[in-house]
Amino acid sequence: MDIIGLDALILSALREDIGTGDITTACCIPEDNRSEARFLAKADGVVCGIGVAARVFHLLDARTALIPCMKDGDRAQKGALIAELRGPSRGILTGERVALNLMQRLSGIATATAAAVEAMAGTGAKICDTRKSVPGLRMLEKYAVRVGGGRNHRFNLADGVLIKDNHIAASGGIAAAVRAARDYVPHGMKIEVEAGTLGEVGQALEAGADIILLDNMSVPQMRAAVALVSGRALTEASGNMGERDLAEVAKTGVDFISVGALTHSVKALDISLRFK
Amino acid sequence: MDIIGLDALILSALREDIGTGDITTACCIPEDNRSEARFLAKADGVVCGIGVAARVFHLLDARTALIPCMKDGDRAQKGALIAELRGPSRGILTGERVALNLMQRLSGIATATAAAVEAMAGTGAKICDTRKSVPGLRMLEKYAVRVGGGRNHRFNLADGVLIKDNHIAASGGIAAAVRAARDYVPHGMKIEVEAGTLGEVGQALEAGADIILLDNMSVPQMRAAVALVSGRALTEASGNMGERDLAEVAKTGVDFISVGALTHSVKALDISLRFK
Amino acid sequence: MDIIGLDALILSALREDIGTGDITTACCIPEDNRSEARFLAKADGVVCGIGVAARVFHLLDARTALIPCMKDGDRAQKGALIAELRGPSRGILTGERVALNLMQRLSGIATATAAAVEAMAGTGAKICDTRKSVPGLRMLEKYAVRVGGGRNHRFNLADGVLIKDNHIAASGGIAAAVRAARDYVPHGMKIEVEAGTLGEVGQALEAGADIILLDNMSVPQMRAAVALVSGRALTEASGNMGERDLAEVAKTGVDFISVGALTHSVKALDISLRFK
Amino acid sequence: MDIIGLDALILSALREDIGTGDITTACCIPEDNRSEARFLAKADGVVCGIGVAARVFHLLDARTALIPCMKDGDRAQKGALIAELRGPSRGILTGERVALNLMQRLSGIATATAAAVEAMAGTGAKICDTRKSVPGLRMLEKYAVRVGGGRNHRFNLADGVLIKDNHIAASGGIAAAVRAARDYVPHGMKIEVEAGTLGEVGQALEAGADIILLDNMSVPQMRAAVALVSGRALTEASGNMGERDLAEVAKTGVDFISVGALTHSVKALDISLRFK
Amino acid sequence: MDIIGLDALILSALREDIGTGDITTACCIPEDNRSEARFLAKADGVVCGIGVAARVFHLLDARTALIPCMKDGDRAQKGALIAELRGPSRGILTGERVALNLMQRLSGIATATAAAVEAMAGTGAKICDTRKSVPGLRMLEKYAVRVGGGRNHRFNLADGVLIKDNHIAASGGIAAAVRAARDYVPHGMKIEVEAGTLGEVGQALEAGADIILLDNMSVPQMRAAVALVSGRALTEASGNMGERDLAEVAKTGVDFISVGALTHSVKALDISLRFK
Amino acid sequence: MDIIGLDALILSALREDIGTGDITTACCIPEDNRSEARFLAKADGVVCGIGVAARVFHLLDARTALIPCMKDGDRAQKGALIAELRGPSRGILTGERVALNLMQRLSGIATATAAAVEAMAGTGAKICDTRKSVPGLRMLEKYAVRVGGGRNHRFNLADGVLIKDNHIAASGGIAAAVRAARDYVPHGMKIEVEAGTLGEVGQALEAGADIILLDNMSVPQMRAAVALVSGRALTEASGNMGERDLAEVAKTGVDFISVGALTHSVKALDISLRFK
Repeated sequence: MDIIGLDALILSALREDIGTGDITTACCIPEDNRSEARFLAKADGVVCGIGVAARVFHLLDARTALIPCMKDGDRAQKGALIAELRGPSRGILTGERVALNLMQRLSGIATATAAAVEAMAGTGAKICDTRKSVPGLRMLEKYAVRVGGGRNHRFNLADGVLIKDNHIAASGGIAAAVRAARDYVPHGMKIEVEAGTLGEVGQALEAGADIILLDNMSVPQMRAAVALVSGRALTEASGNMGERDLAEVAKTGVDFISVGALTHSVKALDISLRFK
Repeated sequence: MDIIGLDALILSALREDIGTGDITTACCIPEDNRSEARFLAKADGVVCGIGVAARVFHLLDARTALIPCMKDGDRAQKGALIAELRGPSRGILTGERVALNLMQRLSGIATATAAAVEAMAGTGAKICDTRKSVPGLRMLEKYAVRVGGGRNHRFNLADGVLIKDNHIAASGGIAAAVRAARDYVPHGMKIEVEAGTLGEVGQALEAGADIILLDNMSVPQMRAAVALVSGRALTEASGNMGERDLAEVAKTGVDFISVGALTHSVKALDISLRFK
Repeated sequence: MDIIGLDALILSALREDIGTGDITTACCIPEDNRSEARFLAKADGVVCGIGVAARVFHLLDARTALIPCMKDGDRAQKGALIAELRGPSRGILTGERVALNLMQRLSGIATATAAAVEAMAGTGAKICDTRKSVPGLRMLEKYAVRVGGGRNHRFNLADGVLIKDNHIAASGGIAAAVRAARDYVPHGMKIEVEAGTLGEVGQALEAGADIILLDNMSVPQMRAAVALVSGRALTEASGNMGERDLAEVAKTGVDFISVGALTHSVKALDISLRFK
Repeated sequence: MDIIGLDALILSALREDIGTGDITTACCIPEDNRSEARFLAKADGVVCGIGVAARVFHLLDARTALIPCMKDGDRAQKGALIAELRGPSRGILTGERVALNLMQRLSGIATATAAAVEAMAGTGAKICDTRKSVPGLRMLEKYAVRVGGGRNHRFNLADGVLIKDNHIAASGGIAAAVRAARDYVPHGMKIEVEAGTLGEVGQALEAGADIILLDNMSVPQMRAAVALVSGRALTEASGNMGERDLAEVAKTGVDFISVGALTHSVKALDISLRFK
Repeated sequence: MDIIGLDALILSALREDIGTGDITTACCIPEDNRSEARFLAKADGVVCGIGVAARVFHLLDARTALIPCMKDGDRAQKGALIAELRGPSRGILTGERVALNLMQRLSGIATATAAAVEAMAGTGAKICDTRKSVPGLRMLEKYAVRVGGGRNHRFNLADGVLIKDNHIAASGGIAAAVRAARDYVPHGMKIEVEAGTLGEVGQALEAGADIILLDNMSVPQMRAAVALVSGRALTEASGNMGERDLAEVAKTGVDFISVGALTHSVKALDISLRFK
Repeated sequence: MDIIGLDALILSALREDIGTGDITTACCIPEDNRSEARFLAKADGVVCGIGVAARVFHLLDARTALIPCMKDGDRAQKGALIAELRGPSRGILTGERVALNLMQRLSGIATATAAAVEAMAGTGAKICDTRKSVPGLRMLEKYAVRVGGGRNHRFNLADGVLIKDNHIAASGGIAAAVRAARDYVPHGMKIEVEAGTLGEVGQALEAGADIILLDNMSVPQMRAAVALVSGRALTEASGNMGERDLAEVAKTGVDFISVGALTHSVKALDISLRFK
């Protein structure tokens, strides 16, 4: 996410959290009061969002300095020092919640992604995300997936083609749908087709699909699908993968496994901001 | 959340998900194609966000009708029909993901809140939320907490006073901080003070705090604090309450228990949109 | 008002006043021309908005420096030097009107507030503002009230509860309305109830109101109301207070007097920008 | 003001006043409750802003109907019925303050303008406004001036040329400044030059100014200036005109009198919204 | 372009053109005046933007009806009736220029695209656009290219990969750049590589590029490149194609020819709005 | 165009072109890679937009420096060095297209304007632009016209009065329309009236029009109109002037010639950004 979009997101988050003003800070903290504080991991995990947190405090008060002690993607042990913060107390206190809300969520996503990647170590499959992200945070959440070692699927409905059953039904079959897409979408995009059965996998192959999404298939079905495809297209396993045995799925030979739970059911990584 | 803010949020979510256009739908679905589809619960839970989903589809194409079969706050069994949707297929396909992302998250929050409320049934304590919500979604997430039977704590830093240890340190003690707040904030607001020990509870009481937040106390400490306060202020238990035994905490006699995990670590309720 | 909101307000004011460009300045003032100018009081009053004016010129041209000779809240005599301004002439000429429009209005509010506060000197009552402010300027106008020595009432409909006659009628009476509010609003908020008669004051008290707004009462009525309440709730006098004898009202013993005229009928303080 | 700009202004005013939600109304007023209410004049004046008020309620809830009993520009006697309002109670209660804030201010401006126009009846002079308006409301305030019978001066720095002393100094004299303007600005604009002495009036005339602004002149000076100009340019009297005898100024023969106080020091017209 | 983005673009265009209000119309046209008018082609060309024009008038005044007599993509002869317009005169007069500015430009693009497509009739090559569009109008301009029979290249830097010489230099060669892209970008995107010589074409092929952009090559070079590629990748001819003989280029066997001039050097199609 | 509006335009152009991120640059260019590049003219023309381009790169990455070798309005020969650019490669690559799109278009406008001005050299007529500009870019395009030596007509419907045939018809004739305008519009604006025949020219003169637009007249008609007007009003020739012999039109003695094609049918000046 470039700085332009990130700043807009952070400013909007700050407006939401600050409303008409942080009144507790206004009445209790003298304007020239300065503080030092430390971001500490309170659980093991992969840290993500340090730069985002830095930007939160910078936008509130450019005199605040965040000094990173780790970098995005590092594994923090419980108790580890992630970063130090120095500056006017008002800005630090007012920005604390937004910074933590973002950092804890992003670190939670990176941590879960890293666990998924690890679960499939040694296979050729790659973990990727979905569009099941929280409205407004997609760019950051997809960044966290990359930080955790995962790959990004399409970012929105405009930068990737995925033909699902409803598209197929309305187009008059897989072949017709793929043809329509090939005639319409920019030539830099591949055509991905959802298939729920081996029969559909075959049709998608024949229609010239570049990627075949194996939807809610059992492990043996996936293995058969991979065999049928035999390298003529990429394959992607999908469907409640967050609750499946990823290693087992990966061993079927699929190229990608997309996991919605990475972003739709996040457990925040516990991180705290301690004042000295 | 009034309609003005809700529409802005949904439009921005749609822009994020649609980007420059839903190209798969554009090439595969004829403009005059119409569909019927059904929102189905794929797990047990408390449903929330039906009106939000309706608004997603309305904003994309005003000819789409969402007919609710349940209302926010109802408990759905796995398989239950939540709502029906009828209208032009393009709008339904393009809006599906945003509608589900919101509805699944809000239902997840309502479900977790209802479980927490149930866990303390029979005690006088009330569950409430925190500011640990996802940037941009606070109003909706706090709505989901209410739908689940919980109460809302302050919505932002402007509509409630909460004096924490840093505020106290910078003000020169609890008494001074409470006095500063009383002189500054609108007279319609109560003064809440964080206390980590019985001693601090006593000081807060003496300073005239209206609410005392018992931070990270053990159950016996909380019990003692409630006894010390003895009705002269409201009490609120706080600190990783998502991992505590809520019934036990509630039985200490505290008035409120605030649970950050309700919004910072949400498990989405599984809901799908099935086309007929 | 934090800098984020203030800048947005100023930029929007500048856009309104500049339109597609200050053509007089564009054709008459060479780009590298520099000026010095002085803000002078042309009438006695309490100065407010110096920092706001500084921000106007900074946003137009960051090379402009405003050097304050007074600070917000200081009393200026006619002729007093408020601040000096140095920088590129174009920015100074283009920003002059917006800076003066804001400063004159805020100073007018601070001046009127200070006069009201003085009128009640020696009583325990406090002057406060209302929501009768000019759309878009509320935060600044409430800041000016504080600068003038007044207190702020709620900033918007979200950060304070005020139950008026219509709310009471629709809820089925004062007791029911207060109960509904207590069950719904965040526990950090007090419940304020409007009362037009002594009877209603009594009902509000009994219902547990934290604050009672004495609406359009005569001085003897107010005195009786204060006696009836007897410290069990805060009292607030309201209703065309801008045209009442504030000292007399204050002596009834009410805690707060809210004065809409402070912001709805402002006489701008005459301030000019003189070029050297 | 076209509907596009007006709606944006109203929505932003509503957001400012509603914040995260009108909580008093949310807890006390059932969703299906309906009300009737009446806008009543509580003082004599010229009414302005009825359509604006109608739009406030429409934007909050399109089911609300405002039925005008007067139209903008009508003179209301104290007690007069201005308009009736019918619709869902929530929208009416939530929108009341914004609607009144706008209507009272606009009516105050129209009333003061009408009084100024009346003061000069029988002379050929016309009252006009200035850019001394409240940031954000200029279009509406200039509309109110027209409704009160006044004329509008330029709306912003882009749609009129006014060469002041600083422009003259930086350009090397009146003649040079006028020439620079004539060469630069669109040919549909007249060139107005500020003159503080008869000598400057003469120079402006010679330079070919289309309009001469007589700045802070005494009545005899103005009379002499008008004689000197003798119809070769338009003349405009300016400088604290709000505190001058307008009839006397008008009789000097000036074409326009611009009065900053019409918008910078407004006394709101007292209007109330009474529920049946 | 979905309705959400289109409306925002039109509203912003209207704000730019209307400024603080269409004063000529305000003073000359009574509010209840109605008109009928006709969009007429004043030159031969492919019409595009009828729906856009309809939306312009609808947003200004929803009572205006535009009745199309042709549809986007139709070829109009000079004098042909494109559409009829009926409604309040004010909205029609105020919206005329924005509607024509958009329609004339889009029709100009469609006309030029259709001519390019025709020039290559009978070859297998396809015309496509570039990112050399006017800031703010890209979606509409790319729509016009499709209407004229052309294909769209990527819409922005996020939905397509195009590795140019600078990317190659900084990555350490074509092979390394392609590998980096393959590891990073969503698996639904193809990798396109720019090649200026046959040698680079060979390296790109070897590196596994999906598309090879033949940059500024002569016709014989392109022919050789196509032979070398021999169907293992798509080929795209690029480089001042607006001034080349497209038929000749197409006959080299390239798959796509991208033409920047389609959008960067548009000749507006002459269309007028005639009032009855 | 002041910096405030320019930055908003550029940011919006960057958002359009970057979408969710420049993925090619993200994967191929290391974050600390730096580049030098040069803007070169690839055709003869008048350069315009150097400052705009500088701002594009500054907004993307403030560490980027653009060093101008020419200034806006200079004539560049094919091959001339316009400016040099130094800074982080990512920002340069990501901003290249937006910077060139703007600079090429503005230079194209300046070049065409300069040619038109030259074509009429020695006559007293002045070339001016129209409102036939591309939505969103009007301020910049009018700036380019000035850079090319032309004059600006009104910027929008608010800063100039132009009474066309429809306004005349609805007002009940030219005299009535001019009177209505004189009574309504700010006194700093002239009244311009469109005339298609000598008879209408006469009526406009009699009605007191300040400017008469000679619409679609033949050269002899224009000559007669100028004679009839005889200095009592300004005259402006209009109507497909882009395809007329400007010298011939200029010699009729008209004061202004307005040319829509300057902005509605722009040929971009070919400029490239070469990396060292």
